[in-house]
Amino acid sequence: MLAARLGHPLKLIAAAFLTTVGVITLLLRLPLSAEPGQHTTFLQALFTATGASCGALANVDTPTHWSTFGEVVIMFAVQLGGLGFMTSASLLGLLVSRRLGLRIRLLAATETQSVGIGDVRRVVRNVALITLAIEGAAASVLSAWLWLDHGMPVGRAAYHGVFHAVTGFNNAGYALYSDNLMSFAGDPVVIVTIGLAAILGGLGFPVLFELRHELRTPRLWSMHTKVTLLGYGVLLAGGAAAVLALEWRNPATLGPLGAADKLLGGFFGSVTARTAGFNTFDYGAAQPATLVVTDILMFIGGGSASTAGGIKVTTFLILFFAIVAEARGDDTVDAFGRQVSPAALRQAVAVALLGVALVVTGTLCLLISSHHTLDQTLFEVTSAFGTVGLSTGITGGLPAFDQYVLIVLMLVGRIGPITLASALALRERRRLYRLPEERPIVG
Amino acid sequence: MLAARLGHPLKLIAAAFLTTVGVITLLLRLPLSAEPGQHTTFLQALFTATGASCGALANVDTPTHWSTFGEVVIMFAVQLGGLGFMTSASLLGLLVSRRLGLRIRLLAATETQSVGIGDVRRVVRNVALITLAIEGAAASVLSAWLWLDHGMPVGRAAYHGVFHAVTGFNNAGYALYSDNLMSFAGDPVVIVTIGLAAILGGLGFPVLFELRHELRTPRLWSMHTKVTLLGYGVLLAGGAAAVLALEWRNPATLGPLGAADKLLGGFFGSVTARTAGFNTFDYGAAQPATLVVTDILMFIGGGSASTAGGIKVTTFLILFFAIVAEARGDDTVDAFGRQVSPAALRQAVAVALLGVALVVTGTLCLLISSHHTLDQTLFEVTSAFGTVGLSTGITGGLPAFDQYVLIVLMLVGRIGPITLASALALRERRRLYRLPEERPIVG
Ligand SMILES: [K+]
Ligand SMILES: [K+]
Repeated sequence: MLAARLGHPLKLIAAAFLTTVGVITLLLRLPLSAEPGQHTTFLQALFTATGASCGALANVDTPTHWSTFGEVVIMFAVQLGGLGFMTSASLLGLLVSRRLGLRIRLLAATETQSVGIGDVRRVVRNVALITLAIEGAAASVLSAWLWLDHGMPVGRAAYHGVFHAVTGFNNAGYALYSDNLMSFAGDPVVIVTIGLAAILGGLGFPVLFELRHELRTPRLWSMHTKVTLLGYGVLLAGGAAAVLALEWRNPATLGPLGAADKLLGGFFGSVTARTAGFNTFDYGAAQPATLVVTDILMFIGGGSASTAGGIKVTTFLILFFAIVAEARGDDTVDAFGRQVSPAALRQAVAVALLGVALVVTGTLCLLISSHHTLDQTLFEVTSAFGTVGLSTGITGGLPAFDQYVLIVLMLVGRIGPITLASALALRERRRLYRLPEERPIVG
Repeated sequence: MLAARLGHPLKLIAAAFLTTVGVITLLLRLPLSAEPGQHTTFLQALFTATGASCGALANVDTPTHWSTFGEVVIMFAVQLGGLGFMTSASLLGLLVSRRLGLRIRLLAATETQSVGIGDVRRVVRNVALITLAIEGAAASVLSAWLWLDHGMPVGRAAYHGVFHAVTGFNNAGYALYSDNLMSFAGDPVVIVTIGLAAILGGLGFPVLFELRHELRTPRLWSMHTKVTLLGYGVLLAGGAAAVLALEWRNPATLGPLGAADKLLGGFFGSVTARTAGFNTFDYGAAQPATLVVTDILMFIGGGSASTAGGIKVTTFLILFFAIVAEARGDDTVDAFGRQVSPAALRQAVAVALLGVALVVTGTLCLLISSHHTLDQTLFEVTSAFGTVGLSTGITGGLPAFDQYVLIVLMLVGRIGPITLASALALRERRRLYRLPEERPIVG
């Protein structure tokens, strides 16, 4: 079975992902994919293929550069990337839990120690069903609203509804408008529908699966679901409050809006940072402090095995619980009446610190190569690592070297944290001997 | 004995430190302390008293604002702060090690489980002796050189030699020249002498004590000394290489200098970030990437129980070793043939993450309140937290609120990490029960 060879599933996932990016790149280079008169360079095609598959940045303006064919290719890349990632990350999570003999609630069925072909089929089917259900609901609402309220022709409304439902649920941030969703800043139906789709996609398959089966019996929820929901909720509310406080009077962003639209903008600004990537205001005109707050939200990201990026809510919250435990003098980290396994804690530390190292390195690369300010650069790099897609508007104008750096950051940010954590978990081994302990002075 | 009441020594240290700052503030407010015609506000006096005692930032120009009396008060504040901190941090380290029954090499004497008045005396005496020896040597070299080579009158040369030996060894960064040490950029005797004094002070008393007694038997060194020396060396060399590469052609910093002076500037730029705080070039004119690299070095800082600040080299290196161990699949973190105690690892995580939280919060405060760029703000805040004293030149012009934020950051950055780690270590307790383990998905 899959668990038999440890490195195997990880290499398989990376290879499948890179192949997808390659094929999409080729498709996007076809003249058919661009609007008449537009030429697509290799870097533009590669960047967009990576950005769409990872659900992150774009370096050309989607509606004016790409033809409808090109847009559909992008939509498929987004869908394939999201589905593929949710499936493989869920399977990896399953593999890790099974192999370590822990109670696993992801699938109700067999309790063997390996993940068989039957499990794979079940996960794929369930991921596909949940995706279809949520995207279908979001597309229906959006299409009907664009047709009835915005007076779009019915075919165009259906296309726009489906496109934004797909990019919404998959936290991809691609929109069919040059100003992204800024012209819908005052339209609660569009904003809330896309926002909810992004939140559901960002919670992750394991959580959605548990919620679907045990919505009314929270005492049966796994620690993973409880931690994810708590973290997601707190970060969403805190992020919205911060964006609102900082941008309330900014004449270039939320300032000119009415109070209700400001609240909508604050809510969506928080959703989008985790890591949907749409924008209803111009981040190039936002306060520097808003950019830093958004950096933090983008870095943390969404749920594990979700369509969102970042180091993940569980990683962040486990580290927070660890600090609380230290402050209390406890030698174990507890959450919701259970002890967080020490291995999960160690992996959370590794994932978070490697994430910081990656963002710092990427920021230094861009700072050295181009002449943008630190807040623009840090924002761009964090957005790439967190597969968010927000930008202060500098992406398209960056030198080729910087764009390649961003491509690598998007790929590593997408595949990295979960495969890293899984690789660490799967390679776990008990030493047969222990060295004597010694305690250096810390702090 | 001291160990009898856990919270006691920590409160005592904080109280002593704050009292010192209060008394120095009162002394600096005396008209006698300022040059004729200069008026010292309460905030200027408080900021300078905090900056000098912590060895960090200044918000007025030292030579033009303060009289010689004021300068001597500052020198005493620097010396008192450095001595007091090294002593108390060493005693805390001793207390932690003793209480936990681990092998302790800091003092050769008694092996009881508590720290008695005899130990306190021994530590104070040894700290004072080492300080006096290094500062005496540095002061002699500097005074002789300023007299013989720079043609300073002998009394003035002696005063300048002593002042910079004291601020050098104590990593305080205060100089008697308006351009700090920029006019000495090409003077290897001054730069290397102050640099060496700062490095020795920054290694920390436990390391200096071991080196003094067991210089030729490295196999007897504790893990703490080995980790500190390794980390200090690597960061020093890496920092110098980065500063040199980034500033080599910058016409506003190292660009106009000859190759030898450039090397000197790169070396000193690396030393000063950890956390001496002197400068031989203008950080306001440095590359943004140099500021970020310096931010990292300032955040990490020097050795534990040293005159330097930051989260400390051991904290940083233990986290690095933890990532390596994770990558290998090991379930213990080893260094130099010993296992790093899990408690030390957990405390390193807590100290580092709280440091990050503090720097991010401080940066947000300054970003919201004033209108400096993110790189200036982050640099200023990291410099305060790391008790470095480097600045892009914005300190004096910041609004009062920002200056109070910096004062708090300097105090917390100075007293925080070690007392936090010690408090955590002293409060450590084994739970009488264990909750069942559960493993959330990470990454
Ligand atoms: K995204
Ligand atoms: K300093």
